[in-house]
Amino acid sequence: MADVTADLDPEEFRRLGHAVVDWIADHRAGLDALPVQPGVDPGWVRGQLPASLPEDPAPLDALLDTVDRVVVPASTLWQHPRFFGYFPANASLHSLLGDMLSGALGAQGMLWSTSPAATEVEQVLMDGFAAALGLDPAFTFAGGGGGCIQDSASSGALVALLAALHRADPQWREAGVTGDERVYVTAETHSSLAKAARVAGLGARALRTVDTTPGSLGMRPDALAAAIEADVAAGLRPVLVCPTVGTTGTGAVDPVRGVAEAAREHGVWVHVDAAWAGVAALCPEFRDLLDGVELADSLSTDAHKWLLTAFDASLLWVRNGAALPAALSIAPEYLRNAASESGQVVDYRDWQVPLGRRFRALKLWAVVHGTGLSGLRSHIREHVALAAKLADRVRADPAFELASEPSLALVCLRVVTGAGPEADDAATREVLARVNASGAAFLTHTVAGGRYVIRVAIGSVTTRAEHIDELWDRLRAEATSVVRS
Amino acid sequence: MADVTADLDPEEFRRLGHAVVDWIADHRAGLDALPVQPGVDPGWVRGQLPASLPEDPAPLDALLDTVDRVVVPASTLWQHPRFFGYFPANASLHSLLGDMLSGALGAQGMLWSTSPAATEVEQVLMDGFAAALGLDPAFTFAGGGGGCIQDSASSGALVALLAALHRADPQWREAGVTGDERVYVTAETHSSLAKAARVAGLGARALRTVDTTPGSLGMRPDALAAAIEADVAAGLRPVLVCPTVGTTGTGAVDPVRGVAEAAREHGVWVHVDAAWAGVAALCPEFRDLLDGVELADSLSTDAHKWLLTAFDASLLWVRNGAALPAALSIAPEYLRNAASESGQVVDYRDWQVPLGRRFRALKLWAVVHGTGLSGLRSHIREHVALAAKLADRVRADPAFELASEPSLALVCLRVVTGAGPEADDAATREVLARVNASGAAFLTHTVAGGRYVIRVAIGSVTTRAEHIDELWDRLRAEATSVVRS
Repeated sequence: MADVTADLDPEEFRRLGHAVVDWIADHRAGLDALPVQPGVDPGWVRGQLPASLPEDPAPLDALLDTVDRVVVPASTLWQHPRFFGYFPANASLHSLLGDMLSGALGAQGMLWSTSPAATEVEQVLMDGFAAALGLDPAFTFAGGGGGCIQDSASSGALVALLAALHRADPQWREAGVTGDERVYVTAETHSSLAKAARVAGLGARALRTVDTTPGSLGMRPDALAAAIEADVAAGLRPVLVCPTVGTTGTGAVDPVRGVAEAAREHGVWVHVDAAWAGVAALCPEFRDLLDGVELADSLSTDAHKWLLTAFDASLLWVRNGAALPAALSIAPEYLRNAASESGQVVDYRDWQVPLGRRFRALKLWAVVHGTGLSGLRSHIREHVALAAKLADRVRADPAFELASEPSLALVCLRVVTGAGPEADDAATREVLARVNASGAAFLTHTVAGGRYVIRVAIGSVTTRAEHIDELWDRLRAEATSVVRS
Repeated sequence: MADVTADLDPEEFRRLGHAVVDWIADHRAGLDALPVQPGVDPGWVRGQLPASLPEDPAPLDALLDTVDRVVVPASTLWQHPRFFGYFPANASLHSLLGDMLSGALGAQGMLWSTSPAATEVEQVLMDGFAAALGLDPAFTFAGGGGGCIQDSASSGALVALLAALHRADPQWREAGVTGDERVYVTAETHSSLAKAARVAGLGARALRTVDTTPGSLGMRPDALAAAIEADVAAGLRPVLVCPTVGTTGTGAVDPVRGVAEAAREHGVWVHVDAAWAGVAALCPEFRDLLDGVELADSLSTDAHKWLLTAFDASLLWVRNGAALPAALSIAPEYLRNAASESGQVVDYRDWQVPLGRRFRALKLWAVVHGTGLSGLRSHIREHVALAAKLADRVRADPAFELASEPSLALVCLRVVTGAGPEADDAATREVLARVNASGAAFLTHTVAGGRYVIRVAIGSVTTRAEHIDELWDRLRAEATSVVRS
């Protein structure tokens, strides 16, 4: 039998790895000169690539050439300093170093025993971030709770819902859902909650949309209490409420304390979705955002949005460290091992839906090691300051108005034509389309209070004052042109 | 406002990235000299690390030092050539190069429009692998089906189940599950199916465990047909059956064709779990493994087990390309865009539970680019040949016996003491514990037919004949010592 080595040997990897690092450095250094969004049509990429897989190996140079020629020109550049769409997806260079180390180890952290380091580094980081965010110590492993890294806040919401279903009904693992469960959200809640309810077998009818306070768009605790009471009176089972800290649309903040107090009487699980905004609590001046979270059962915030850590790294904490394993554990023979049976270890497979898991903690660790908490705070503060400055410009320019007060680093604005709301909406939509088509910046929209709104989500790793200046100049120029035409 | 840069600048990254690449090359080159499994106690890693996060940044060298001092010694080394546990987790150096490029782009491929390249490269690869595996063209986008990369086969099974629930009941999205749904597995089916049923709100009672043929441990189509008929007669709703190609325990193969024929009459969704073994169908001589898959609705096989691609990259194909979006799509305003509304693109967020997704196709592409299909076939063939050679040694040695015939590169064996099954089981257990404690190799176990079995899963990227020789010598020495004592 030939001793075939399909993989690179380490010395080849050293040479090619250096070439890829150089490619990355050049790509990142050159981003500012590229359009943020590509102008390609559906099918263009497929048309550029061979339809069948290669029979023989080819050198890395050929791959890099195709990446340059096909992939980059057809990529929306989320790491571009003038990317202001959705929420940021901070793939910092620090985090890439950590992720490379994770790839090197190639560990499968499904059980403590399958990689003690992968589990315990994650525990240390989750406890450390809990403290740095000012969370109640009950959310740490030392305090009886604990945290883990999920791939996304969607998955965090799903497992929180599963734990809530298990807590609400000891028969759930055996008998499934009954159809009487109810989940409380608002019209501003992220769609991942509706998806979680669907995945969990509850269906859309299980969702109760609680009224919000006009203006703030925050969930009304009195309306929540009334909805829960009415459902209980009707023989239904309130299971989970999701207050949001920083909604996707406009960055609205639900009053977590009031929500949690309204939920308490009937034992409703409180899952706080702070996917984007939660990380700002690293700064003492923004810690009020998490007021009341000490009364919640679980909290999600994404390190992969605004905390410099490459997707995927969504941080989920639960007050009861046994809650997720109680809901999710299944123990086939081949996973049995002495460490698990000792009860002294955490097996993170029982904190998530998939069995396998990467050593994601390394990229988060590389970030906080390379920046320190002080660097993370500066990163957040700079973007919040840039948002305040942009909001001032919007206020001072009669051609624009704020759709709502800025929330941290999110500015929601619209064009003012003087010809009424419909004309304003049409102009706002057109300005957004033109800015995006120009490639000079990338923006996304929402509809709030029935009105079309441009969202400017500041937070890309390299976004600085000059990029906001460029955006603002472009917005003004396009608005002038649109209103004139 | 200070122009604070929390991240590395590209030139710093170039320097540090080279250092990390060197670390990776050295680590991989030195693996053979390290113990495969660490001897650390629970809490050791946590005790080595500061309890709180650093306030100030520190140089990369300090992180690498901690990785050397704490992480590597506390890691089960899945990339070690003498790792034979569970199934392999091939984090090839080729795939690391691709993953680095993915990190560089930092794309979020939730929608086609959020990164056309991320979506279309994945489509091209999934169609290309479908052809290379000999799948029915119906599983390609060109044929009306399609494929996507999931994080794990667990998640693939879950979304297949959700699509099946939706197909079985048009009210599912609105009203949830009814409690009448039934899912068919065997005692050998992976626990992810039971977990999927739990997550989906069906509960354990929804699982029907179909009898297997003694010896082969394959699902009996006649028993499946009878179970389905009985459930239909009882007013229940058969939803999904999961035949496995290469079970986790012993690599058993369910007769997919017979299962699919039994499922057809009542429209039961057939999801083929070929997580480990499916990739072997790249070799024509193993293509029979997938006989009957052309009758199935979906198929999973993991590139991250035995196909050189770092976790996570589980390949899922569906016959009906509309099935997953029909079950999973939710369209909030902020995700609306012209491309999605044109109907001309695939939005992969609707093929999975999480909203966000990485550009995982790049690592798979880097693998097939760097090895060619010919390299992938050699990789698989070499390990199958090594398994055959090990099985021959087991057959020839009276101190051992095969627990079952080898399945591809999985050899299941036990120690023979001459003192009966209980003594054999105890000796087998003790030999496994001693081999693992020695650090010379890492093995895991299962229980099959009530007997304790050592699984030797050959397939790590760098495993060669000499590593099997070393394992065999160690097994023989430990068996001699255990039987003597």
